[in-house]
Amino acid sequence: MFGISRHTLYRNLCLRNAERKAPLFSRCASTTSGSKSVKFDWEDPLNMDSLLTEEEKAIRESANAYCQEKLMPRVLRGWRTEEFDPAVIPEMGALGLLGPTIQGYGCAGVSNVAYGLIAREIERVDSGYRSTASVQSSLVMHPLHEFGSEAQKEKYLPRLARGEILGAFGLTEPNHGSDPASMETTAEEVDGGFIINGSKTWISNAPVADVHVIWARCKWDNKVRGFILEKGTRGLSAPPIKNKISLRVSLTGSIFMDNVRVPQDSLLPGTKGLGSAFSCLNSARYGISWGVMGALEDCVARARSYALERHQFKRPIASFQLIQKKLAEAQSEVAIGLLASLQVGRLKDQGLLAPEMVSLVKKNNCGKALQHARSVLDILGGNAASDEYHIARHASNLQITNTYEGTNDVHALILGKAITGIQAFAN
Amino acid sequence: MFGISRHTLYRNLCLRNAERKAPLFSRCASTTSGSKSVKFDWEDPLNMDSLLTEEEKAIRESANAYCQEKLMPRVLRGWRTEEFDPAVIPEMGALGLLGPTIQGYGCAGVSNVAYGLIAREIERVDSGYRSTASVQSSLVMHPLHEFGSEAQKEKYLPRLARGEILGAFGLTEPNHGSDPASMETTAEEVDGGFIINGSKTWISNAPVADVHVIWARCKWDNKVRGFILEKGTRGLSAPPIKNKISLRVSLTGSIFMDNVRVPQDSLLPGTKGLGSAFSCLNSARYGISWGVMGALEDCVARARSYALERHQFKRPIASFQLIQKKLAEAQSEVAIGLLASLQVGRLKDQGLLAPEMVSLVKKNNCGKALQHARSVLDILGGNAASDEYHIARHASNLQITNTYEGTNDVHALILGKAITGIQAFAN
Amino acid sequence: MFGISRHTLYRNLCLRNAERKAPLFSRCASTTSGSKSVKFDWEDPLNMDSLLTEEEKAIRESANAYCQEKLMPRVLRGWRTEEFDPAVIPEMGALGLLGPTIQGYGCAGVSNVAYGLIAREIERVDSGYRSTASVQSSLVMHPLHEFGSEAQKEKYLPRLARGEILGAFGLTEPNHGSDPASMETTAEEVDGGFIINGSKTWISNAPVADVHVIWARCKWDNKVRGFILEKGTRGLSAPPIKNKISLRVSLTGSIFMDNVRVPQDSLLPGTKGLGSAFSCLNSARYGISWGVMGALEDCVARARSYALERHQFKRPIASFQLIQKKLAEAQSEVAIGLLASLQVGRLKDQGLLAPEMVSLVKKNNCGKALQHARSVLDILGGNAASDEYHIARHASNLQITNTYEGTNDVHALILGKAITGIQAFAN
Amino acid sequence: MFGISRHTLYRNLCLRNAERKAPLFSRCASTTSGSKSVKFDWEDPLNMDSLLTEEEKAIRESANAYCQEKLMPRVLRGWRTEEFDPAVIPEMGALGLLGPTIQGYGCAGVSNVAYGLIAREIERVDSGYRSTASVQSSLVMHPLHEFGSEAQKEKYLPRLARGEILGAFGLTEPNHGSDPASMETTAEEVDGGFIINGSKTWISNAPVADVHVIWARCKWDNKVRGFILEKGTRGLSAPPIKNKISLRVSLTGSIFMDNVRVPQDSLLPGTKGLGSAFSCLNSARYGISWGVMGALEDCVARARSYALERHQFKRPIASFQLIQKKLAEAQSEVAIGLLASLQVGRLKDQGLLAPEMVSLVKKNNCGKALQHARSVLDILGGNAASDEYHIARHASNLQITNTYEGTNDVHALILGKAITGIQAFAN
Repeated sequence: MFGISRHTLYRNLCLRNAERKAPLFSRCASTTSGSKSVKFDWEDPLNMDSLLTEEEKAIRESANAYCQEKLMPRVLRGWRTEEFDPAVIPEMGALGLLGPTIQGYGCAGVSNVAYGLIAREIERVDSGYRSTASVQSSLVMHPLHEFGSEAQKEKYLPRLARGEILGAFGLTEPNHGSDPASMETTAEEVDGGFIINGSKTWISNAPVADVHVIWARCKWDNKVRGFILEKGTRGLSAPPIKNKISLRVSLTGSIFMDNVRVPQDSLLPGTKGLGSAFSCLNSARYGISWGVMGALEDCVARARSYALERHQFKRPIASFQLIQKKLAEAQSEVAIGLLASLQVGRLKDQGLLAPEMVSLVKKNNCGKALQHARSVLDILGGNAASDEYHIARHASNLQITNTYEGTNDVHALILGKAITGIQAFAN
Repeated sequence: MFGISRHTLYRNLCLRNAERKAPLFSRCASTTSGSKSVKFDWEDPLNMDSLLTEEEKAIRESANAYCQEKLMPRVLRGWRTEEFDPAVIPEMGALGLLGPTIQGYGCAGVSNVAYGLIAREIERVDSGYRSTASVQSSLVMHPLHEFGSEAQKEKYLPRLARGEILGAFGLTEPNHGSDPASMETTAEEVDGGFIINGSKTWISNAPVADVHVIWARCKWDNKVRGFILEKGTRGLSAPPIKNKISLRVSLTGSIFMDNVRVPQDSLLPGTKGLGSAFSCLNSARYGISWGVMGALEDCVARARSYALERHQFKRPIASFQLIQKKLAEAQSEVAIGLLASLQVGRLKDQGLLAPEMVSLVKKNNCGKALQHARSVLDILGGNAASDEYHIARHASNLQITNTYEGTNDVHALILGKAITGIQAFAN
Repeated sequence: MFGISRHTLYRNLCLRNAERKAPLFSRCASTTSGSKSVKFDWEDPLNMDSLLTEEEKAIRESANAYCQEKLMPRVLRGWRTEEFDPAVIPEMGALGLLGPTIQGYGCAGVSNVAYGLIAREIERVDSGYRSTASVQSSLVMHPLHEFGSEAQKEKYLPRLARGEILGAFGLTEPNHGSDPASMETTAEEVDGGFIINGSKTWISNAPVADVHVIWARCKWDNKVRGFILEKGTRGLSAPPIKNKISLRVSLTGSIFMDNVRVPQDSLLPGTKGLGSAFSCLNSARYGISWGVMGALEDCVARARSYALERHQFKRPIASFQLIQKKLAEAQSEVAIGLLASLQVGRLKDQGLLAPEMVSLVKKNNCGKALQHARSVLDILGGNAASDEYHIARHASNLQITNTYEGTNDVHALILGKAITGIQAFAN
Repeated sequence: MFGISRHTLYRNLCLRNAERKAPLFSRCASTTSGSKSVKFDWEDPLNMDSLLTEEEKAIRESANAYCQEKLMPRVLRGWRTEEFDPAVIPEMGALGLLGPTIQGYGCAGVSNVAYGLIAREIERVDSGYRSTASVQSSLVMHPLHEFGSEAQKEKYLPRLARGEILGAFGLTEPNHGSDPASMETTAEEVDGGFIINGSKTWISNAPVADVHVIWARCKWDNKVRGFILEKGTRGLSAPPIKNKISLRVSLTGSIFMDNVRVPQDSLLPGTKGLGSAFSCLNSARYGISWGVMGALEDCVARARSYALERHQFKRPIASFQLIQKKLAEAQSEVAIGLLASLQVGRLKDQGLLAPEMVSLVKKNNCGKALQHARSVLDILGGNAASDEYHIARHASNLQITNTYEGTNDVHALILGKAITGIQAFAN
């Protein structure tokens, strides 16, 4: 197992309340002139560190150490073979990285900012690993915790938290990506349970998931609700989608449900319509907004190193204006995108979150990460084609992070609706 | 005089220390699920309000009321005629908007964030008014306060704070915009004073300034220092540059110094090389990063109203996807750009500012403001040509805010140097 | 009058048929290796010259000489004062630049490519002058020639060709820019004529036009037709729209028609619905696609000269990578945009034009001209604010060329419809 | 073998001279009004067809039929496995697609435009197949034909033309991508021949090439010359570079030369310095400028079909404005990019080519193809991740086409130098 023991991490996570407070944004009393010189840290250009609690910083360090030491060496093999490494999830579980914002049930109960920092560290290695973890935390553990019965929580959450079992989230259907309201999957009430019919697609983790949170339209009242389906139930299959060009280290599949019979207690009792599913998506999207910044940071760091080492015309290419501009603009977007996600996380912790805020940071950070990953990829020249330089892998991944859980355009229209009061999805 | 009395404002500015503290970024103890619904405020998409002190909000409200009630009605006339309205500066002074971060000398002594909020409110009306104020506060009062003798401070600061006199900042020379190190203006020591020779150009406020802070290379040691030159001194002239396409409500001029003789005490004793001038620029650039967001906010608000009122094909054009995307992306940049400037302001207040941080927000916010002002300008269709719709005026102004005090490219190279360690200005 | 006599020009325009043929695109028989070195001409990067007839080149030279010698010296004054110079139109007429593609009626009868070359030369000076000429040629002379009776042609065309009278084109209404099908102006048949009621806006030339081609919905059959209205008719007024931010050297106005009574022969008998108006717009848009390239060429040429003269960091700024990239990309768009317009012109001459082709080049060339005029404007630094450097003027003009006669977005949707078969204007 | 027999094709290629002439660009005598309606063909928006000879159209049809029927079914397997299909080259050879502009030696002797059309058809399937063919034609057959002795031509060209043997072009070295002048590979004269030492990298076709055109600095006079190295020569090895993210259907490798001894007649006698290598690159770049347009055309066609079939919110997504805009802008770039390449091809045929023209179309077309392939990729939503929708494959390929044979930035600087007269590569 990874060096930082669970015990150590737990100690980090159990700091006294007093120390857990987020730092003040300012201490106006001691206003200073600002003319004294402070060293600029290009890896944290706007000193976001000063806005994190000691606990959050400790979690980030733990997550970073694990990801760089344990995930990074495996990423190329996973990318090339599209094989999912089942050891990853228990490792993350042992470190407390799964469902970390949940209080109890073996979860760490940390802030939403800490959750974001974890996503960023995982995605600094690969968006696929982060996707796997996001699904587990935001799309499976979150709805269980939010909408599940006490029995359901006790049955599943501790095992999900430890990574003993893996979950999937079945909302998207083959014909309904941006428009889940047209869902065709149905649940029918029968003696002592339900019968589920339908199909889902582009479901992360599905082929190896032990438990699926499936959304279906209930025939008795036409409302959409969530159900827990366990692997191995008759009529349930989840074949993988192979030969992906993106997110190759994580598994993706379809879910086919052919008269799948589930007991009464498979219904998530708190789910009330699509809004419940959207609450999960919002949680996941929030995490994505952090994660993609990590991927872009890795791109910038690698492009920078390359540009310093690579010489052309007898000079490091890092000395060329066209190279510097790419690096500067990419890193600026990292700095401001992270601050925006931090603010959204703080508001979420305070119960002041509006869903459109998540659309804003999901759209902005994913779009900027994709754009600038591609921009700094050009710095590699021909080496951009080699997966050993990693940036092309990130850029391929970010294509899908910019698309899943609401495409860039769909989030523009969510914001457009919030700004104008007019819905334009179907325009 | 404007309705909000100085007394009222002063009370706002004198809140007890306890209340002046910036709000916590988070209160982790009360972490909530984030699933409860909060109303999204498109005018403050990421709830920056929750990060401001009561004092800061009060200052913002005062500034907003003044700017909308007193400046807005005058802006079109000023734009059309290029005539500077000398009443503006005393009005701002009466409200405490000039040199507001300075402690004492009749200044308000508020936070750098409050300073930024003031810039944003002024530029919500016009970048020219904000330029006038920025020069007074950051480029004249700041160097006097930072580098002046006690006598100089007492002589000039209170009158500048009240807006009784107006200042200008003479650094840029005709042949040296991005490269002030090649400055040609000289100061020579003579009996009881100095003789200044040289010329400056694109100097805001110059034609009507009562006092000029002039930077000159001192012949005795080849160092650059600042000098105070008063209007009317023999050999000093400051003719206006007319027919500008940008910033037409503020005056711009050249400064010609032909054997201008100034007394010994015109030297700013604390200035030590170009770094002192850069400290002023950094202060101004910081304010600009706030101001341009105000201009963009005004563009978005006006384009939004227009799009809701304007019907084509029997529907408000606000219902068209191509319109909504423009609005959504512009307002997203406002939201994240403001948070970035807020963080820089808090760091400045704490003495944790690195100059490159200012380059980052100056470059990002000016570049994005220009880009998106132009984008939403398109929403006006043919009415974009009319100054009565105001957006074209903002867009014209923002061309220069993106260029002055360091062009977008120069700030990219400042950041590029910070990231790579290699200077590429001359590449 | 301008030096090149009408006689000389006429000789140019009357070359023998054999010489008027456009050059072959290739002479395959003499295929050569391509390895021999030919000098690159940055002002004609893809050697468009080799595709022009001798006549076309002669016309271009005449137009260029006139525009640079006679229009250029007047442009700044016109821009600053918004005063229209009435001498311009007769001058253009004397040179044969008005309605040049029309055969007979005192018109030159040259190719559509020659017409495009004229537009390009005029707009190399200013988009406003080109707008005035475009209206005369494409929106007034074209419909008269295409849809007028022989008597109407003989009455108006020769005088319009000589520039003795100026025309305007009244289609756009205050509430119907992109959607002329909702037109509210009406024509009612009365004894011996018609009564026209309604209003038009953003009409180029209107305030000084001697003759207006007005489009109105005919009450008797609900079809849209064109009418000729002469200045001074009772009930007709055309007040100017002042304080424009764009196209200031040309006049723009509203047209108000309050029970304007016109005789029977004011109806353009060949007009049949909005399609007739669109045919005029297509002719104008085609010319615009050439014109804006001229404006961008002037921007590039000026930015290039500036960059070669301006030194920073002891080197011409033209030696900086960030500057060269801006110039290279702008000039590339000029080169390929002109070839596209040339091909559209050749197809037009051959009767092979589809209207969507015009949308393509109008959208592309206007969009690229605007984008790159702004990009090279940045090369000027602070001098971008001065109208004496001309690029800011071009950039302001191009905002409206990109919008009028179909906004960039509307042309995207025209093309989108052609590609998908689905109309999405109202989406 | 593929259905269109060599005989049939040959007949196409042997049309009488009279018919081989390129069409006139215009026939001015029959100038028409342009108001008659012509059907717009979205697949050939500016009617480029009308500018092609019958022979060129026949070649295009043949190439298209072969590529769609024979290459397209193999592309996915090749992409997934990175296995090169050795049958492809002889198939192309049988159709006359290799070295097609060469006269004699079993080559077709067609126009450079025909060569471009072939590249476009191949790349409509995959940029990797086109790369393989480009290397054979432009980088191996071209230098042999241009710089080889008669004996060399007779020995190699016919077999290369038939695709019996495959060639590679060794110029780029591990440390010298954009800057070949710093080449380290050397040739030393020895008894009866030469000894070559050095290494090359990112060499297309290298692992399976039968013959390599290797560029080396000759020790005796320090000039760079080309040499023919045959597979199997002692000291020569060419291991593949695997796990590429781009161009996976074509092979890429390094070439290591460790005291490779070659006979006297391996020297290409006509090579005179790097200029000779650049002549090859220019030929290849010209072909690339056509090829990438084919790739983008395939992306647009597929995205369009998808958008028409895919329904969301009860409507085909092709009806959404945001979708239409992406399609319209992508296809516009296709239309104007192809015309530009056509003009360059015609000039090349006439011996009027300047190398910077090739830089212009290579840069523009590759850059636009990449940008818009990515843009229309977004139309696929989550399906963008699947290689079965092909657009992601194209987009991945285009990353490298935009980089190899001169990065986008390098071509900007080549043009920048041509425009300003100042070289800025090393800035």
